[in-house]
Formats: sequence, structure tokens, C-alpha cells
Amino acid sequence: MSIKPNIEVCLSPLLLPLYDIRDSIVVVIDILRATSTICVALEHGVEKVIPVSSIEECEAFKDKDFILAAERKGQIVEGFTSGNSPFEYMNGKTKGKTLVLTTTNGTRAIMDSKTAYKVVAGSFLNLDVLCEWLMDEKRNVLLLCAGWKNKVNLEDTLFAGAVTHCLKDNFEIDCDAAIAAEQLYVNAKDDLFDSLQEASHFKRLKGLGVLKDIKYCLTPNQAKVIPVLLDNELVPLR
Amino acid sequence: MSIKPNIEVCLSPLLLPLYDIRDSIVVVIDILRATSTICVALEHGVEKVIPVSSIEECEAFKDKDFILAAERKGQIVEGFTSGNSPFEYMNGKTKGKTLVLTTTNGTRAIMDSKTAYKVVAGSFLNLDVLCEWLMDEKRNVLLLCAGWKNKVNLEDTLFAGAVTHCLKDNFEIDCDAAIAAEQLYVNAKDDLFDSLQEASHFKRLKGLGVLKDIKYCLTPNQAKVIPVLLDNELVPLR
Repeated sequence: MSIKPNIEVCLSPLLLPLYDIRDSIVVVIDILRATSTICVALEHGVEKVIPVSSIEECEAFKDKDFILAAERKGQIVEGFTSGNSPFEYMNGKTKGKTLVLTTTNGTRAIMDSKTAYKVVAGSFLNLDVLCEWLMDEKRNVLLLCAGWKNKVNLEDTLFAGAVTHCLKDNFEIDCDAAIAAEQLYVNAKDDLFDSLQEASHFKRLKGLGVLKDIKYCLTPNQAKVIPVLLDNELVPLR
Repeated sequence: MSIKPNIEVCLSPLLLPLYDIRDSIVVVIDILRATSTICVALEHGVEKVIPVSSIEECEAFKDKDFILAAERKGQIVEGFTSGNSPFEYMNGKTKGKTLVLTTTNGTRAIMDSKTAYKVVAGSFLNLDVLCEWLMDEKRNVLLLCAGWKNKVNLEDTLFAGAVTHCLKDNFEIDCDAAIAAEQLYVNAKDDLFDSLQEASHFKRLKGLGVLKDIKYCLTPNQAKVIPVLLDNELVPLR
């Protein structure tokens, strides 16, 4: 009898210390919008993404030929020309460049996970390719929801549920957060957009006029890339 | 237009610092079994319950005419005669007594909430009376799930969902954890026992042979008492 690897869901970065991630693959999830945008950027030719926790760290890269992108509270930070929208990285202008990115939640969660065996970025945009790879790896997986300022959010939970749903026949599940996330995903999967109408970050972003971003970030399988953290930089997994 | 109070759900005690509870009622939830047992004890005539965080603190009360009860990992701690099962407090022998109780999760969550406007204990056993009171109070509510060693658990989440479901017409909900918990409760409510079959603590307790406890703890409205924390003691709310 072969022992299945296990899959767990961590609903907030504040709960990460409860999990032993040294031998696990951590999938960082920030659907609206950091990990979605990171997938898009690498898919559309950005060479690498350097996730940084603070605006100051981001500014420290300004003398190089890098694209500096900073988002807080859903908006581009004053003094920066780039932010956290996937559409900023689709027009070919950023091809071959390095993107230095700081966001409210996602980039911090990536840096918090550095001690893991591997850290990758997950989003609906790379759902299938990510799940196939996780199945091949046969290793314990922690799905880390970036949340909103450490509070649990619905869109990241739904994506954790989508991955759990896809992997559950091949993985052991002994994690109530994974069970809950999968149920919520099954409830929502026929209309993710509609199911998020009451979610707090959905309402926040809707107020900022980025409905187009939200719709795109909820569209499965627009990318074939799996961003993986190597030496503090996210690059396409080869 | 009157402003509705809001209802939020905190899925783990580790996330409690994210919420400003000073003017809120905190409902501490540890369905299996601390807050269920506290409801039963007070309903069946225990005069007061002193929740303590550690086994040492519990032992410090041993020279008094108190019932000392200690549970860890689902079992009575060695050297103690009482634990965390509701049936221990139904036989009349504990009537009029003071119970000093320490459990793995619930009693700590109660003590962590001390700075709130009011701290009460919630369980399926006192669901309706609790919801009616919360509706009368017209004050912000935080539903605090004790979880299992700070990890999210399903049974506490379901109860938070049950309260949210009951209160949602009279409260503002701008909390994704509350939205999620309510959905999970609506999925599960027709057979709570069955819906918990895969939950980690359910499996843990089933292995310890306390299925009868679990079934009882999932039975709504067996008590009319609302345990409230006054000067570090839980007493029936008057």
C-alpha cells in the first residue's frame, strides 16, 4: 500500500507557523490579484518577478532597468506607474523585463513561506497545470491563502477548495480547512463571479472599478506557467 | 435608517488580535466539547465554572471544595477525576458546586477574549436562546471558534454559521469567514452528525469512544442558559 501525501489548507498567513512546511510544497494564493498577476506576467514573457514585502524594498530597486510595481488597498501606490492588475502585463511592453512587486497580501505570504521545500504561485489562471504538477510531485502540499490583512477571504479559500477538489483522490485530507474550502468551491464552481458578490474584497475592488480584473482572475486555465520561488525570485518552473 | 450591528467570525484564536472586541460581544465556540459542557454544567445546577488555561492553574484550586476538571487531547488528564464530557455534569452530583475547567482549546479562547464588552459561551445546546439574546442586545458580535490547537475546525465553524444564519437579517455581514461559515452550515444543517464524519476532531473523538458526546453536542436547544464571563467566572446570564 502506498502512502498518499497529504493536502492541507492554511486560511491565513498568521496561521502558517502551525504547519511544518520544510518538506512541503507551499502554494501561495492571492486570487485578487497578486498571484493571478504573477502568473500573467510570467506567461506573457516577464523574465522574473521579485516579490518584496514593503514599498521601501520595492523603491530600492529603482536605479535598475526593472519594472517597479506597488499596490496597497487595491490601488497603485503614489509615485509608482505599475500596480497589481493582470492587464498591465499583457501588452508585450514588459517582455524580458524583471518585475519587482509588492502587494498588500500576496507578496508577503510568498516571502513568509521561504522555508518550504518549494514555493509556487497558484491562481485560477494556472489551475489545471498546477494540479497536474502537484499530482506528479507526490509530495505534501500546503495551500496558503494570503487573505486580506491576515483575515480569511472567500476568493482565496475557493481556489484552495478547487485544488483540493482536483487532488483529493490522490491525496490524504486530514484538515478541516481543506474539507470546508472544497465544499465552498463545489457550491460556487458553476458561477465563481456570482458567488463572490458578497465577499468583502470583491466589494472593495468593485468600488475601485476593476470588475474586468476580477472576471479575468476567476477564469480558469489562461496560463501554462507555474511560478516558482528560486533565490527570492519567481521564475517559470521548468 | 437605523444602523445594524455587525457580525464577524474569527476562525482561530490566533486571529483574534485582528478584531477590535472592546465594544463587542464575543461568543466563544468549542462545540466538542468545552462550551457545550459549560452550558450543560450551568444548566444542570453547577453554580459557576472557572475556566483556566493550564493544568497547573487547575491544580492550584485543589484544596477547595471545587470540582477540578482537566482535558487534553480529548481525554481526562491523569490525576483528575473529571473531564470535558457533558454527561459528567448531568447527574445532580455537581449541583451547587464550582467547576474549575481546563481544556485543550475552549477555556483558553475564553480567557483570550477577556477584554471584550461581554464574553459568552455558545453551543448548539443553547443556540436559540443565545441568538434571541444577541438580537436583543443589538451590539457587534464576534463569533470566536476555538478550533483545535489554533487550527480551524469544522464543528466550531458550523456553529458560527448557524448563529450567522439566524442573525443575518438583523446584522450587517462584511466578513468572508461569516459568509463561508453560513454556507457550510446551510449545507450541513439537515444532518450535522453526518456532515462531520470527515472532520479531524470528530475522527479523533470517535477513536476515543465518545460518539454519544458528539451526538449530544450537536443537538440544538437542550439548554436555556447563556454562560457569561464575570470576574473570570462563567455564570448563568440573568
